[in-house]
Amino acid sequence: MNLEQFSQYACERVNRYLDQTLSAYTPANTLQEAMRYSLFNGGKRVRPMLTYAVAHLFAEPNELTDASAAAVESVHAYSLIHDDLPAMDDDALRRGKPTCHIQYDEATAILAGDALQTYAFELLSQHHLGKADDQLALIQTLQQASGRHGMVTGQMIDLSNVDKEMTLEDLELMHRHKTGAIIRAAVRMGAQSVGVKNSEQLNALDLYASAIGLAFQVQDDIIDITSDTETLGKTQFSDADANKPTYPKLLGLEGAKALAKRLHNDAIAQVMPFGPKATPLVELANYIIARNH
Amino acid sequence: MNLEQFSQYACERVNRYLDQTLSAYTPANTLQEAMRYSLFNGGKRVRPMLTYAVAHLFAEPNELTDASAAAVESVHAYSLIHDDLPAMDDDALRRGKPTCHIQYDEATAILAGDALQTYAFELLSQHHLGKADDQLALIQTLQQASGRHGMVTGQMIDLSNVDKEMTLEDLELMHRHKTGAIIRAAVRMGAQSVGVKNSEQLNALDLYASAIGLAFQVQDDIIDITSDTETLGKTQFSDADANKPTYPKLLGLEGAKALAKRLHNDAIAQVMPFGPKATPLVELANYIIARNH
Repeated sequence: MNLEQFSQYACERVNRYLDQTLSAYTPANTLQEAMRYSLFNGGKRVRPMLTYAVAHLFAEPNELTDASAAAVESVHAYSLIHDDLPAMDDDALRRGKPTCHIQYDEATAILAGDALQTYAFELLSQHHLGKADDQLALIQTLQQASGRHGMVTGQMIDLSNVDKEMTLEDLELMHRHKTGAIIRAAVRMGAQSVGVKNSEQLNALDLYASAIGLAFQVQDDIIDITSDTETLGKTQFSDADANKPTYPKLLGLEGAKALAKRLHNDAIAQVMPFGPKATPLVELANYIIARNH
Repeated sequence: MNLEQFSQYACERVNRYLDQTLSAYTPANTLQEAMRYSLFNGGKRVRPMLTYAVAHLFAEPNELTDASAAAVESVHAYSLIHDDLPAMDDDALRRGKPTCHIQYDEATAILAGDALQTYAFELLSQHHLGKADDQLALIQTLQQASGRHGMVTGQMIDLSNVDKEMTLEDLELMHRHKTGAIIRAAVRMGAQSVGVKNSEQLNALDLYASAIGLAFQVQDDIIDITSDTETLGKTQFSDADANKPTYPKLLGLEGAKALAKRLHNDAIAQVMPFGPKATPLVELANYIIARNH
């Protein structure tokens, strides 16, 4: 499968799983609507693609893989809803559509985010999804990446550095927490979902995930100053305008491009030993630094 | 142990556990501070008391009981932070102190709430806390009570009914989700933490929890119109002022008192068969309808 085919496969598979599990047991209501609005808003499903592509290195993805991909995407969706709130980044537009608190209201957006976080743990703790040990390991990985040890701390670092000078080291620390932790979890959970325990393989995949996670952010900063609003689906220069530190600011545009390229090479080096089955992972790394939106 | 002694035992035990687990692995920072500010703000630890008192019916509370009590309290603390936000109940005072978004800022309060939710699942998924099956069952119980199936839906029902007429049935549905679900989880997790599988016993405890959970809300409504601001630690008439439906509005003050009394009797009937070991549970039920703040 090439990247386009793999992307279609992963999107369809995670969307079906999200749809089925969301529908179960719950009557339609505004909370459910807002959760769906934010989950199904045309996101590229990069994290689920990683989860499936990594599982696929070792075995056919199973229902633990589905639950992992869906849980990671649900945490990602919750974080975007809360990041977009007026008290945080105050964004009215996300992927060309009104953000959750604009489409509904602020209270509903806060609660939809809260419920999407719980839903991630609901997915991973379902009865008889797999061995209890495996389910527990997946929950450990996700919580470690999501809360005070990961994503939420990253958002705190981000907010506390608006209008401040930030070193390259600080900027990397912020990204590694804010977005890198969940990307690493998506990769690790893909392997864990099919029972991988080999620490050398887990370590190589973790280095791959770290590298593409950071490359993704560097590329985001590059896109933010080279693309236009229509392509981007959000207001151009929004990060630069907010006086947020970015890689092009610290390294210059060419320096940032060189860093993205180096991270891309590092990532690919880690997954080459897995052979042809790693093609989706290699192509994903290529896509991350080739994309312009 | 009488209730005062039991309360002291449970508070000390859950506070020590929260303190230890929060300190581990994380450097002090504003996020951590805000999490602690809201977790250690003089709350009465009613939910942890329930967890320990129920475990105590069957066996010595163990570390799974500690993790359960702490996780339930952490979800409770997160929900209070988010409920107090300007977009929700907009409360500046909680237990006589500034609410989290007043003490810090709105963004920090949203993130501290988010991180406290994750922390609850961190506590329950810790390595080698107990059997993986038992840990998974506790996670299932907590997620079921916290998200779209429980507490968050309750808060949505609450917000969508401000300034609206509400039937007694709707009011009960709201409370059963908003606060009842977590109280039931606190009770069930106490039993699950010491390995109780007997469905008759679990059922009796669940009926006890449902009854005291609702009694707690009815009594809250009664206190809201009979107590003063100093005793209450929040602005008097805050719920009535916000045009929120309350039991005294629907049933009259005497009718609400009679309902609280009936729920109290129902609760006690369910735990009497457990004998003298149920004393803390009986005294807790007594306290809930005797308290005036």
